[in-house]
Amino acid sequence: MRFTSEQRLDDGVIEREFTLGEIPGTLWTPGSAAPTPLILMAHNNGLPKAEPRLVARARYTAACGYAVATIDAAGCGVRPRSAADEQARADLRRAMQTGEPVDEIFESLVGPLVDKAAPEWRTTLDALLALPEIGGPVGYSGWTALGIRLAAVDPRIAAAGFFAGGYVPLAQREEARQVTIPLLLLLQWDDEGNPRQRALDLFDAFGSKEKTLHANLGGHLGTPWFEVEDGDRFFGRHLK
Amino acid sequence: MRFTSEQRLDDGVIEREFTLGEIPGTLWTPGSAAPTPLILMAHNNGLPKAEPRLVARARYTAACGYAVATIDAAGCGVRPRSAADEQARADLRRAMQTGEPVDEIFESLVGPLVDKAAPEWRTTLDALLALPEIGGPVGYSGWTALGIRLAAVDPRIAAAGFFAGGYVPLAQREEARQVTIPLLLLLQWDDEGNPRQRALDLFDAFGSKEKTLHANLGGHLGTPWFEVEDGDRFFGRHLK
Repeated sequence: MRFTSEQRLDDGVIEREFTLGEIPGTLWTPGSAAPTPLILMAHNNGLPKAEPRLVARARYTAACGYAVATIDAAGCGVRPRSAADEQARADLRRAMQTGEPVDEIFESLVGPLVDKAAPEWRTTLDALLALPEIGGPVGYSGWTALGIRLAAVDPRIAAAGFFAGGYVPLAQREEARQVTIPLLLLLQWDDEGNPRQRALDLFDAFGSKEKTLHANLGGHLGTPWFEVEDGDRFFGRHLK
Repeated sequence: MRFTSEQRLDDGVIEREFTLGEIPGTLWTPGSAAPTPLILMAHNNGLPKAEPRLVARARYTAACGYAVATIDAAGCGVRPRSAADEQARADLRRAMQTGEPVDEIFESLVGPLVDKAAPEWRTTLDALLALPEIGGPVGYSGWTALGIRLAAVDPRIAAAGFFAGGYVPLAQREEARQVTIPLLLLLQWDDEGNPRQRALDLFDAFGSKEKTLHANLGGHLGTPWFEVEDGDRFFGRHLK
């Protein structure tokens, strides 16, 4: 893990860019010296790690006393996309505009993305936990499909907050039953791209004994800011 | 309004019993002198206002800086029950045990209870707002059916937190569309007595632009304590 830049933000949070092999990442840590819990923050596969809403969430969360890390995993963010991925994304956009069924296209795009991204997130987690300023435990926040895979296969993940969850590949819908850590599933009631009933079915499917659903009125981008604060309180109960 | 007893609790909260005509009530106020927002806290029609879980919620909420009031409205708690109500409650218990349909029995019991309780809650609100230690605005917390009626007809109610919402009389399911204040609907995912889909349909029906759903795994009595804290934060956004 090689740090390539560092800046100290107004609230004392330190924001560092890093690379780990081909993986570009960003790490936010609170100013304090003590080892802190870590939150892996991943968002929807199509967006870069520098996307402003993710950065705002990450900075807020770090200021609350967590190390927060994100990467552009293989095929995500600024990483090169395969011709097949580009084609699938174009097909998906067209199908969503015309109202055609999107399940198969979605599966062909996101299923392989999760398979490729998960090992890179775990490699990143190995490197992060070797840093003296990061202790544990580890939480996960964001992209539902990736988070299900990580929570199902990596026992270091102690609690997770997932967003949306309407379209989740078949493999992850199955893996959801193997997820037993405390969960907070956050969804938008009128999310254009995520069918509500599927998100509710997914919530039902998780194996966790302690799981909470939050839903707010509005579309995919309408999540109110207080949900970021609620997320911090959720992680506070399980990681601190 | 006549206060009949007063005690100061460990956290400075003052707990007073009162009567208002035939209505017995309890008022909790924080120790501070400044006029505070008010929360009307009503619970499910069958339970008395002295029920320990309600008292614990009320004391916590008062310590957060609110006046909190509850009453046993007509037919509720310790108030006399009509022979028809007693019969309906017996029928309801039997039907729930044997798995027979409960809709009609429920409607015949709870519909009239809401009709009788709502005016008493409004009379109580008049008297409470005349006290110098209570300012405003006013929130409502608890029993869904009564809260829908109050929020639909009384413009003084500025925000409301409802619990359960599976069985709500027909009249209130209609009135839900007229409710436009900020809402937090809290439900238990496996509530034995409140069908999940109906609670979700009710959430969908509310006219409010700002509404949030919280659901937790478990049965009717399994709500985790952090939801009381979340409720306080919800009211903090709208009443303070």
